[in-house]
Amino acid sequence: MKIIIIGGVAAGAKTAAKAKRMLPDAEVHIYTKDNYVSYSACGMPYYIAGDFRDWHMLLIRSIEEFEKSGIHIHIRQLVTKILPADKKITVKDIDSEQWQFVEYDKLVIATGAVALNPPFMESRYTNVFTLRNLDDGIAIKNAMDKAKHITIVGGGYIAVELVEAFVKNKKKVTLVEKAPFILSMFDEDISSVIQDYILENSDSLVKILSGDTVAELVGDENSVKDVITSKGYGFETDMVVVSTGVRPAVDLAKEAGIILGQTGAIKVNSRMETNLPDVYACGDCVEKINMVSNLPVWIPLGSTANKEGRVAAINVTGGVEDFEGVLGSTVLRYRDLNISRTGLTEKEAVQAGFDAVSVVITKRDKAGYMPEVKNVTLKLVADRRSHRILGAQAIGCGDADKRVNTVSIGLLQSITVEELIDADLTYAPPFSTSIDILISAAQILKSKLG
Amino acid sequence: MKIIIIGGVAAGAKTAAKAKRMLPDAEVHIYTKDNYVSYSACGMPYYIAGDFRDWHMLLIRSIEEFEKSGIHIHIRQLVTKILPADKKITVKDIDSEQWQFVEYDKLVIATGAVALNPPFMESRYTNVFTLRNLDDGIAIKNAMDKAKHITIVGGGYIAVELVEAFVKNKKKVTLVEKAPFILSMFDEDISSVIQDYILENSDSLVKILSGDTVAELVGDENSVKDVITSKGYGFETDMVVVSTGVRPAVDLAKEAGIILGQTGAIKVNSRMETNLPDVYACGDCVEKINMVSNLPVWIPLGSTANKEGRVAAINVTGGVEDFEGVLGSTVLRYRDLNISRTGLTEKEAVQAGFDAVSVVITKRDKAGYMPEVKNVTLKLVADRRSHRILGAQAIGCGDADKRVNTVSIGLLQSITVEELIDADLTYAPPFSTSIDILISAAQILKSKLG
Repeated sequence: MKIIIIGGVAAGAKTAAKAKRMLPDAEVHIYTKDNYVSYSACGMPYYIAGDFRDWHMLLIRSIEEFEKSGIHIHIRQLVTKILPADKKITVKDIDSEQWQFVEYDKLVIATGAVALNPPFMESRYTNVFTLRNLDDGIAIKNAMDKAKHITIVGGGYIAVELVEAFVKNKKKVTLVEKAPFILSMFDEDISSVIQDYILENSDSLVKILSGDTVAELVGDENSVKDVITSKGYGFETDMVVVSTGVRPAVDLAKEAGIILGQTGAIKVNSRMETNLPDVYACGDCVEKINMVSNLPVWIPLGSTANKEGRVAAINVTGGVEDFEGVLGSTVLRYRDLNISRTGLTEKEAVQAGFDAVSVVITKRDKAGYMPEVKNVTLKLVADRRSHRILGAQAIGCGDADKRVNTVSIGLLQSITVEELIDADLTYAPPFSTSIDILISAAQILKSKLG
Repeated sequence: MKIIIIGGVAAGAKTAAKAKRMLPDAEVHIYTKDNYVSYSACGMPYYIAGDFRDWHMLLIRSIEEFEKSGIHIHIRQLVTKILPADKKITVKDIDSEQWQFVEYDKLVIATGAVALNPPFMESRYTNVFTLRNLDDGIAIKNAMDKAKHITIVGGGYIAVELVEAFVKNKKKVTLVEKAPFILSMFDEDISSVIQDYILENSDSLVKILSGDTVAELVGDENSVKDVITSKGYGFETDMVVVSTGVRPAVDLAKEAGIILGQTGAIKVNSRMETNLPDVYACGDCVEKINMVSNLPVWIPLGSTANKEGRVAAINVTGGVEDFEGVLGSTVLRYRDLNISRTGLTEKEAVQAGFDAVSVVITKRDKAGYMPEVKNVTLKLVADRRSHRILGAQAIGCGDADKRVNTVSIGLLQSITVEELIDADLTYAPPFSTSIDILISAAQILKSKLG
């Protein structure tokens, strides 16, 4: 059996490795236009920050290791067409520009996502960047070393991780975000607190222009020198990183007749099968089901890509495994602040048709007398009718993310507010208060529900 | 309505505060033989360690604060009898030795637990201690300051917390534990690793004599000078702390005709009612239900005591609230090592009649390239027939406890191995690997189950 995988970062690399383990006799090939396979894209902000020196540490499995385990890696190979009737793809060698047909028994599309670039990106400027692949990360780090002032366009989680990286390197940062607050995947009562924390803990290096967009980049032949915003602000900059979101890389699939979902990503069933026989898709290019709302969503994340790659590999090689969906669980760090969420925000819950009720409380993460005690702020969202917990958001310099992961398991089984109160969470003074913030929040939510 | 509460540490203090909030017109009294109420007993090892200087920080609510909120506190008052037919108790003032009757409409027994003292405790020695109340903690700290070598008898979690405290203060410690390994609430494949870690990270100050007991304490008129063990070891010591477990303080209740459960603790229903009308019990003196095995257990913990106090208060004041049970969730720290468990150990699962299957894996707690990455070892136990997860144990210098809390929520709803694989846990390089150890363990367990 010949298994062809298009894309080799998280989902593609995982599919290849798992498929070869499941079916050692199979011929497994990865085709990628990239220079690298199997690397931690999520780790690039920490490489840029200087948390570790050598970008090779981001490589999870080298090409040599893949080859040694019998998986064939074809880098700098652009797949230009899928011919499902013939069970073939056409591949162009980026260097030689030569074309070839490659046959498959099973095809796995793991093309990932591409940056959603605003109009000013189509420019001649060499100091304007996006952060998608490893080469981008290396280029941004090199440019950062020479820059004094960096502009970030967009305020999602990669943007915040880059703010941390640049501040750590003592760079001035101006972030331009079109929404009223950065991190719009959080409710505004939470994201406004995050934004304040960043501004107050940035060594006076960070400015956030929210509710504004970049109108124009002004520069000479090669380099941007000034940024002008829609509200009329103008400032000098040494480099610009555009992080205004991504879209699923589906052009190839769409052209081959593969059905896309309403989010614009590839529609697959729980076995990661597309509508075409023997064609699977996984990772950032596919649509997922939100297990709380049961609605299709597109949330590209490395953790999900890995899980989908595993499920695709099992099914491709003749096994049976299902991928049930996602909860929108996310975590990020800004210096000492942990920021995380799972399930639906209050806004998302209302949009999904729930009668949402919520509570926001701040409490210590450990016993008050412990020297390392910090605060955590937790927002818990429930459905007024069923009392079902719909989601949690937590921020704090203490252990915020562990509370969110705890809730996430409850979401898998539609836990109610009353059931969450019965939780028996571990307690010792260095780890929590005797009544954990999660239980306190559930108790308050119960009173609110009456 | 007159509510009398016997005992004022965790469960008693919580009951009083909550009852007064629920029913402000009620007359609420706490009677305690202790000198203090409402303090964090769990915090005493950290006070002894010197993590904070002032033991008053352990007081959660002062007597003045209670009185201000209309709750009457009677310290140094020993309740000697419950007369349920008359709805009265008899109380002896420890200082004046005077007796009085006190009437109640509702009585709440929160007498806690008492140390299980081995025979050699009945001695004249002033340098032999147990750690139960605040005065004990203060006395141990004062004695520790003058000691060079300390003997700990017993190897439960308080013993381990004391080892940490003494090592932090550069004291030599010899711990005598009758079982083959300390921390017998863990399976031996886990507790043996913990024991090794302690020995290897004790600045050569700690010796553990396991599989041995104290046969004799030898000393002069007032002080122990030497310890002799059953295996014949003898060594000099400056002080001894006995931490060989506790038993529920039920003598008062038993004498009044209150039914005890098979664990020897007071039997209550989910509303914290005893068999006697208008007599409730909560905290360390009551038996609990293990929500995994549905068997009665006696696990005295501050977190449970607080929850039971809340439930007792709601029911005492005319509301309706149930306490469903416990999961045996526990966490402790030895220096950088986090140690935690929830649900059943493999041994407990077998004893409870399950066909237990388990996996033990070690994995990084964060992305491998992050500077603060550490290992976590996780043991996951499931039932072979139903595939239901029965419990988890985690140890590691990384975030071990958060994995255990995550499992604990699943235990509330009898999560299966397959369902746990669907968990969508938060991922970012500073917080976890892209496939968290919990998911990896569940995947391996699934293969084992076939």
